[in-house]
Amino acid sequence: MTKADRTRLRIIEASLPLFLEKGYNGTSMRELMSASGVKAGNFYFHFDSKKALALAVMDEAEEIFFDVMNAACEAEGLSPAQKLGAMMGALAALIEARDCAGGCLFANFALEMSDADEDLRERTAAFFERWRLMIEKLVRDARREGELPSNIDSSGFSEYIIMALEGGIMLSRLKKDAAPLKFAFSTLRDHIFSLKEKPTLQDG
Amino acid sequence: MTKADRTRLRIIEASLPLFLEKGYNGTSMRELMSASGVKAGNFYFHFDSKKALALAVMDEAEEIFFDVMNAACEAEGLSPAQKLGAMMGALAALIEARDCAGGCLFANFALEMSDADEDLRERTAAFFERWRLMIEKLVRDARREGELPSNIDSSGFSEYIIMALEGGIMLSRLKKDAAPLKFAFSTLRDHIFSLKEKPTLQDG
Repeated sequence: MTKADRTRLRIIEASLPLFLEKGYNGTSMRELMSASGVKAGNFYFHFDSKKALALAVMDEAEEIFFDVMNAACEAEGLSPAQKLGAMMGALAALIEARDCAGGCLFANFALEMSDADEDLRERTAAFFERWRLMIEKLVRDARREGELPSNIDSSGFSEYIIMALEGGIMLSRLKKDAAPLKFAFSTLRDHIFSLKEKPTLQDG
Repeated sequence: MTKADRTRLRIIEASLPLFLEKGYNGTSMRELMSASGVKAGNFYFHFDSKKALALAVMDEAEEIFFDVMNAACEAEGLSPAQKLGAMMGALAALIEARDCAGGCLFANFALEMSDADEDLRERTAAFFERWRLMIEKLVRDARREGELPSNIDSSGFSEYIIMALEGGIMLSRLKKDAAPLKFAFSTLRDHIFSLKEKPTLQDG
């Protein structure tokens, strides 16, 4: 890693918690510069706008997120439905480890910026689509192995998992308490494991 | 209604769509004043800060929201579980009528401001608690009438309904498409009606 690469990474790593807790509009370039400890000329060499920095921070946050999700699924001997459960549990643990502060960067940006900036909206939507595809693969695997009913809408149901978890992260952040997210996780898990036995439920 | 009351209401009604679509930090007092068409002296007579105005806007939005929710539940001949379904359907229709723009003011403020301003966080949390209590009453009624299992966690499950719907609103806003929210609604409805027949699911 070159010195310039290290500086760039330092700016990104210092900016992530600020964007996470204070939002896009609530964070100024001055604060981001100060948090990174990088002088203005060098800072602007790497990021000439808050938007460019936010996009780079989303790239970094996305990699961290999928590293955690993939690690949870790679534990040995898990069935596809168990991998779904492990992934949801890892997410709850990740949020709880931060005492629920900040919540999810992508949901925050989705709600704050999706009517205001089309580039940020598209970048945020791409994150959720990548996550949905990861979950959909597990849903399809579970369906093939008989853990989920053969007629389940794998695309819609994978998005439903994301919706319930993101709503849980929102309420947990608001209440500064991991309990809502954990309840969403356990209810979703029970729901998934119950579907196998009630294959007609997703017909409607 | 006095002239002063009418001016106050005009400011609130002009501010709601701005806060909804651009967020708290993304909206300036200048814009709010311009949208309301009220001169500065008069404007500041009613609201001496953006926060005071945002709190009044939340009061107004909350009344509109509960009017819609209550109207949906008051249709004749609905069982408690059917009232839950009607309420969720009314919410989906409300969001779709705005082409999903803006999403939910309270979720937006929860994610943007709950780590930054304790007054706004508490006001937002009070909205969600009022909504949860409304849903919890229906869940208890449904339990009493045998539409939901006797061992269901009425408090947790009512919060779960909010989480799945709010996650749905978030993704629908992001994708500018009501489909995710409608899928969340129909999956929740199926889930609720399936619980009756599987009373052990909520034991874990």
